[in-house]
Amino acid sequence: MAQQNIPYKIYLEENEMPTTWYNVRADMTNKPAPLLNPGTLQPMTAEELSGVFCEELVAQELDNDTRLIPIPDEIRDFYKMYRPSPLVRAYCLEKKLDTPAKIYYKFEGNNTSGSHKLNSAIAQAYYAKKQGLKGVTTETGAGQWGTALSMACAYFELDCRVYMVKVSYEQKPFRREVMRTYGASVTPSPSMETEVGRAINAQFPGTTGSLGCAISEAVEAAVTREGYRYVLGSVLNQVLLHQSVIGMETKAALDKYGIVPDVIIGCAGGGSNLGGLISPFMGEKLRGERDYRIVAVEPASCPSLTRGQFAYDFCDTGKVCPLAKMYTLGSNFIPAPNHAGGLRYHGMSSILSQLYHDGYMEAVSVPQTAVFEAAEYFARCEGILPAPESSHAIRAAIDEAVKCRETGKEETIVFGLTGTGYFDMVAYEKYHDGKMDDYIPTDEELAGYAAALPKIG
Amino acid sequence: MAQQNIPYKIYLEENEMPTTWYNVRADMTNKPAPLLNPGTLQPMTAEELSGVFCEELVAQELDNDTRLIPIPDEIRDFYKMYRPSPLVRAYCLEKKLDTPAKIYYKFEGNNTSGSHKLNSAIAQAYYAKKQGLKGVTTETGAGQWGTALSMACAYFELDCRVYMVKVSYEQKPFRREVMRTYGASVTPSPSMETEVGRAINAQFPGTTGSLGCAISEAVEAAVTREGYRYVLGSVLNQVLLHQSVIGMETKAALDKYGIVPDVIIGCAGGGSNLGGLISPFMGEKLRGERDYRIVAVEPASCPSLTRGQFAYDFCDTGKVCPLAKMYTLGSNFIPAPNHAGGLRYHGMSSILSQLYHDGYMEAVSVPQTAVFEAAEYFARCEGILPAPESSHAIRAAIDEAVKCRETGKEETIVFGLTGTGYFDMVAYEKYHDGKMDDYIPTDEELAGYAAALPKIG
Repeated sequence: MAQQNIPYKIYLEENEMPTTWYNVRADMTNKPAPLLNPGTLQPMTAEELSGVFCEELVAQELDNDTRLIPIPDEIRDFYKMYRPSPLVRAYCLEKKLDTPAKIYYKFEGNNTSGSHKLNSAIAQAYYAKKQGLKGVTTETGAGQWGTALSMACAYFELDCRVYMVKVSYEQKPFRREVMRTYGASVTPSPSMETEVGRAINAQFPGTTGSLGCAISEAVEAAVTREGYRYVLGSVLNQVLLHQSVIGMETKAALDKYGIVPDVIIGCAGGGSNLGGLISPFMGEKLRGERDYRIVAVEPASCPSLTRGQFAYDFCDTGKVCPLAKMYTLGSNFIPAPNHAGGLRYHGMSSILSQLYHDGYMEAVSVPQTAVFEAAEYFARCEGILPAPESSHAIRAAIDEAVKCRETGKEETIVFGLTGTGYFDMVAYEKYHDGKMDDYIPTDEELAGYAAALPKIG
Repeated sequence: MAQQNIPYKIYLEENEMPTTWYNVRADMTNKPAPLLNPGTLQPMTAEELSGVFCEELVAQELDNDTRLIPIPDEIRDFYKMYRPSPLVRAYCLEKKLDTPAKIYYKFEGNNTSGSHKLNSAIAQAYYAKKQGLKGVTTETGAGQWGTALSMACAYFELDCRVYMVKVSYEQKPFRREVMRTYGASVTPSPSMETEVGRAINAQFPGTTGSLGCAISEAVEAAVTREGYRYVLGSVLNQVLLHQSVIGMETKAALDKYGIVPDVIIGCAGGGSNLGGLISPFMGEKLRGERDYRIVAVEPASCPSLTRGQFAYDFCDTGKVCPLAKMYTLGSNFIPAPNHAGGLRYHGMSSILSQLYHDGYMEAVSVPQTAVFEAAEYFARCEGILPAPESSHAIRAAIDEAVKCRETGKEETIVFGLTGTGYFDMVAYEKYHDGKMDDYIPTDEELAGYAAALPKIG
């Protein structure tokens, strides 16, 4: 097909924007394993899930069959405020790399939350509003998800209660203020507002908190408060479904210009961005209509796909949430403190885990100094300052393009650029000052965590 | 004209993007007064200006006659990486205000520098490269201009030396790191690298610097170093010319849908954003082809247009730069320390000053808590977190739309949203915590500064 006269940025018209999400589970022969109740070890029922999550979201979580799920008009109206996101032809990067490869990236950073997280936040807020709820609770670490949810709740005039890991709350006051600007209440976790928070404060005086603890507080705040539910920004099937708007737009933009990618690359933490980006492409692959190479990129310091176990594990450190079958390093695993590049989750979406297990995806891990090197290289020629998370995909895309220079292959590479790095300058500073290193867990360490996995199935 | 089916965001196609800048001076009967040499008080010649500025920029500075000046292809290629910027229909804001007014904003914040400054930075870097220079020097306060220039210099592989006001350098390490990511050298000012810096450090040990001092250091660094020139981010005629890309795109987008604005609103510090936005519209007005209301919005704490003198004054506190005829509060004027909303420049572009003096523009001043109130209101319904500077225009646009609600007039309002507020969260925090107030200089204070103006002409 002709790849002539491709503009720098391909924008869809408003009437070309997707009207449905893409549920890749419909195309999977081996469906993702169900969530298990941590008490009974039986699959979670819709009723059990409805105590924590909104009803329509529970239905989406459990729906393994409907391929195209309509996006409600109210959500599409909000999407129109910051979407379509551009599919950018990386002309400057190609030229600087002197590669015959054609590189495209789908840029999700052009909204105030700074990342793709808003795609699911607005959907979850909408369903909460529709159910007549007063508000939602959640946890946030660095603050990207909390910001996205605050924006979504402001739009639907829902109360938004964010439990923010205390160390981030204190060290990242800017993120906290952005959330307050959108009307969210932000509480440093562990707090004295919840039972679990008071217990942790009593047991570990002066603790600066953890994501596991913040999750436990947010869940408690939701289930003990009339008219509230808990929402989560990644990992779950419903979140991948909402994020499929990324893939639907990407596919529509490529189709518009007759471009067929050879390889699709995305960074993977909990998996929502990668899962969303690849959904319609993976559908074609699973149905045998087309073949694409699909590559997940993870940090060498938190290598769940490349070095983890495919097993049932707890989704949270506090072990209050359901168990999921996934590639995991163990719910007690925490990346080394010098790890600045994000993507710190110990597990991986059950959908992606199953697809990887069945051989439909590749995975690579990259050390963080190489990631920041790629980030800076990219920033200087393409202008955009990428988030560390997104820069994992940049690293892999550059490596692929350099291979093309060596082999002379004119591959078409598409990667997901999930967000911007404005709030990650401490990590960039470490890199500039030569204070960043590449701790990689040893086999012994990982074996220790793996031995502690729950014994199920 | 039909204002039917206007999309949320009007994007121009790549082939609809402007190929020329718009030089509004060509349409002015009363041209802006020339810059004066501070030594001789005679108009600065091209030769004198060429010691400090690049040759082609000097030609642009002095050209009062050529209406359309072609944008070089190399600059247009860079513009394509982050432009066209969207012209957004503020449907949600209109609905929330319950106004019959139709509100549009031209959003310049979707690039890594976070503002419109990049439009001129890339032009100035291009001409420096074309002249065979090694690099450029500049000063930066909050860091927006320094970031834009760093990005532009990285693209053309020019050396970029930024003198950053010491207090900002220390309090805004994130901005500094963004500039380093783009390869700029960032020096806290006053430094020990320049004569003027050493003198100021000796005279005021422990000083945290000022913009005036940083300008003086940047100018010295340029004129004493082989192959360097000094560049500036606002005020100058050349900068307004480059920023006219905003107005050209805005006009093309409005024309595409048959929309004719009644009122055009922009914030005004040095005047580059407002001057750029209004240029082609003001051209029509000056030629008598169409009438628009054009409104400059400035902070009540730094009210150069609404309460200043129209007189020759120094452009910098250090009095090393040429004198410009402009609305000014006096080059010694510094806004109250509690002023957090930007737009702190004591003067105003000579072009805008002349147009205002001749009655082609209105000006209003707004107190800062009202500005932050508008900023938060806007963020919650339109999603975008605005820069404090931009929020002056939001305040005035909301006030205008509320008037329409009262009168029932279906006005079409266009305003410039110059940038995002990610690096301004300290100011937002003050607002959230009720620690912001509205100091407004007294008539006596302003009279004191005015009395110190140089006596010329």
